[in-house]
Amino acid sequence: MNKLNPATRRLALAALALTLLAGCRQDSNPLPSWNPTSSRQAVIDFVKKVTDHGSPHYVAPADRLAVFDNDGTLWPEQPLYVEVLFAADQMKAVASQHPEWKDTPAFQQVITGSPDAILGLEGKDQFAVAFAVHSGMTTEAYANAVDVWLATHKYPRFSKSYLDVAYQPMLEVIAYLRANEFQVYSVTGAEVGFARIANAKSFGIPSDHVIGTLLKTTFDPTVNPAQLVAQPDVLLVDDGPGKPASISNVLGRRPLAAFGNSDGDLPMLQWTASGTGLRFAALVHHDDADREFAYDRSATVGHLDKALDAAKEKNWTVISMKGDWKQIFK
Amino acid sequence: MNKLNPATRRLALAALALTLLAGCRQDSNPLPSWNPTSSRQAVIDFVKKVTDHGSPHYVAPADRLAVFDNDGTLWPEQPLYVEVLFAADQMKAVASQHPEWKDTPAFQQVITGSPDAILGLEGKDQFAVAFAVHSGMTTEAYANAVDVWLATHKYPRFSKSYLDVAYQPMLEVIAYLRANEFQVYSVTGAEVGFARIANAKSFGIPSDHVIGTLLKTTFDPTVNPAQLVAQPDVLLVDDGPGKPASISNVLGRRPLAAFGNSDGDLPMLQWTASGTGLRFAALVHHDDADREFAYDRSATVGHLDKALDAAKEKNWTVISMKGDWKQIFK
Repeated sequence: MNKLNPATRRLALAALALTLLAGCRQDSNPLPSWNPTSSRQAVIDFVKKVTDHGSPHYVAPADRLAVFDNDGTLWPEQPLYVEVLFAADQMKAVASQHPEWKDTPAFQQVITGSPDAILGLEGKDQFAVAFAVHSGMTTEAYANAVDVWLATHKYPRFSKSYLDVAYQPMLEVIAYLRANEFQVYSVTGAEVGFARIANAKSFGIPSDHVIGTLLKTTFDPTVNPAQLVAQPDVLLVDDGPGKPASISNVLGRRPLAAFGNSDGDLPMLQWTASGTGLRFAALVHHDDADREFAYDRSATVGHLDKALDAAKEKNWTVISMKGDWKQIFK
Repeated sequence: MNKLNPATRRLALAALALTLLAGCRQDSNPLPSWNPTSSRQAVIDFVKKVTDHGSPHYVAPADRLAVFDNDGTLWPEQPLYVEVLFAADQMKAVASQHPEWKDTPAFQQVITGSPDAILGLEGKDQFAVAFAVHSGMTTEAYANAVDVWLATHKYPRFSKSYLDVAYQPMLEVIAYLRANEFQVYSVTGAEVGFARIANAKSFGIPSDHVIGTLLKTTFDPTVNPAQLVAQPDVLLVDDGPGKPASISNVLGRRPLAAFGNSDGDLPMLQWTASGTGLRFAALVHHDDADREFAYDRSATVGHLDKALDAAKEKNWTVISMKGDWKQIFK
C-alpha cells in the first residue's frame, strides 16, 4: 500500500472505511424511528432475504433497485403538492414581468388573491400555473429559483422548512436499502427539474436518481452557454401508467421494491410486485391527523382507493403513519 | 478487519483491490490502439487536467460525466443503422403472424425482396419497419429478440459478429474515463430498448447508462407479470436537439465530455462544450475506406457537415480513423 501515490492511498483507505461502516450499520437497528410492528419487520425480512447468499430469494446487487414516490411517500402533500405551492409563490414574484398573465383569470386570482388562492383553483388550473411559471426558463435558471424558494420557505402547517419535512422513517428505509447495496430512485409526478432540487435537498437523492414528469424543451445554441428552454407542453406525465413507463425509459428494468401512497402509484406497484422472484410493494397510509394528515379514499390530492384494495388483495405492506412510526419528520 | 463477517471482509478486500488496480492502470498506456497523435494527446490532456487536484481545471468525480453517441461513434453505421438491419430481419421472421403487413408496400418489399431490400427504402419507411416490428411487443420480449439476433448475425461487410464490431480505440477511451471516475453514458438515436442490448453486449455499457429514442407504451396490469407494451408512436427522438433534452431529462446536468460523429450529435456537443470550465468535444471522422468507410458531408446516413465546421471553429477534437487509430475493431 505504501507504494501507491498519496491520492490513490487516500482513496483505498476511504473505500475500506466505507465498507467497514456499511458492515457495522447492518448490525445495529436500521429503522430506529419505527415501532416494532409487522410493517417494520416486513421491510427487514425482505432485505434480509434478497441479500442473504444462502437464501432462495437472493438477488445480486446489480439487480437491487428500489423506487420511491415523493409526494405523500417521502414528504407531505396536503393541502397541495409542494411544486404547486412553489409555482404560486413564483407567479406572484415575477408577475410584473408577465403582463400577459392578467388575461388568464386563474393566474390573476393567484397574483392578486390571498396566499391560499391557489387552493381554490381546479387541478388543471393549478398545473397551468406551474407550467406558465416554468415556461421560457432555462433548466439552470429554474433549478436556481426552486433552490432558493425551498431554502427560504416553510411548510404551511408544520412551521418547518421544506428541507426538514421529509419523513424520518422513510429516510431510514432509504439508508437501510443503500447499506444493502440497493440503488434508490425517486419516481415522482412532479416535474423532474423541480423534483431534482427537492430530492437533493430534502431526501439526499442525487439528480441522476430522480425520475419525474417531463416538459418539452427547445434547444438554443445561439446563446452562451447553449441552453435548454422549457415549453408549456408536457412530454410525459410520470403518474399512473406513466410511472412504469418512465422507470423503463430511464432504467430499462423492473424494480425489486416500490414505495407509494396513492392510486397514482398503483401501476408502479403492480409492475414491481408482479416481477419474478421475491418483490416488495408498500403503501404509506396517511392515518395520523394529529401529527400529519388523515386521508385516503375521498381525497382529491393523494387519492388512495384502488391501490388500498390491491394492497389488501396482494398482501402488500400498508404502512400506518400512526401505528408504525415513532417519529414523523426528520 | 478480522472482526468483520466473511461477506463484509470479502467486500472490503474487493474494494481495496479495485482501487489498487485503478491506480495501476493509470500509470500504463491507457490508449494502446491509438497512434501517438494530437487527438490521442487531447484526450489524455483533458483527463489529466480535470482529475489533477492541483489543476485549475479540476472537477470533482461526481461531476465527471461523459456521453457517447453509438452509431458511427462506437460501431459502424454503413450502409444502414444496425437497428434497422435488425428490424428488416425481424419483419421477415415474423411476417406470417402479421398478414396486415401485406397492405403496406414498403413492408411487402422487405418481406419478399432480397436481404438488402431495406436499403432501397426511404428513411421514413425504414423507421416505419422498425416501429411496426416493435409495436405490440412487451419490453421484455423485444429485448430477447434483439439479444438473440445480435448474437447470431454478422455485420454485412466485415464478416464479424455484431458483438465484435465496436471500435477498439473508443472502448479504450471509455475504460480510461471510467478508470478516472467518469460516469459514461450512451446517448443514441436508436430506440432505447434496442440500444440497451447492443450497449451491454457490444460496448460494456449497462442498461441504466443508456439514453435513446423513446416510444410511447401502454401498461397492461391484467397479464401476469404486468407488462409495458410498445406503441408505434415516438415519444422523443434522441437525435439533434433531442440529445441534450434527453440527457437533461435523465441526468439533469450537462456532460463534461461528449463524443459524436454526425450533425445529429451537434447540439449535444454544443451543449457540452459551452458549459463553464474545461470541456471536451470530439467527432469521429470516417476517413478510412480501406479498413471501414469514408463519408462525411454528402452522406445520408451519418451526415457530417455543420458539425465538422463547428469543430474547426471551436477547436473540438476531430478523430481521424485512418490517422489516429492503429486498430479499428475489438
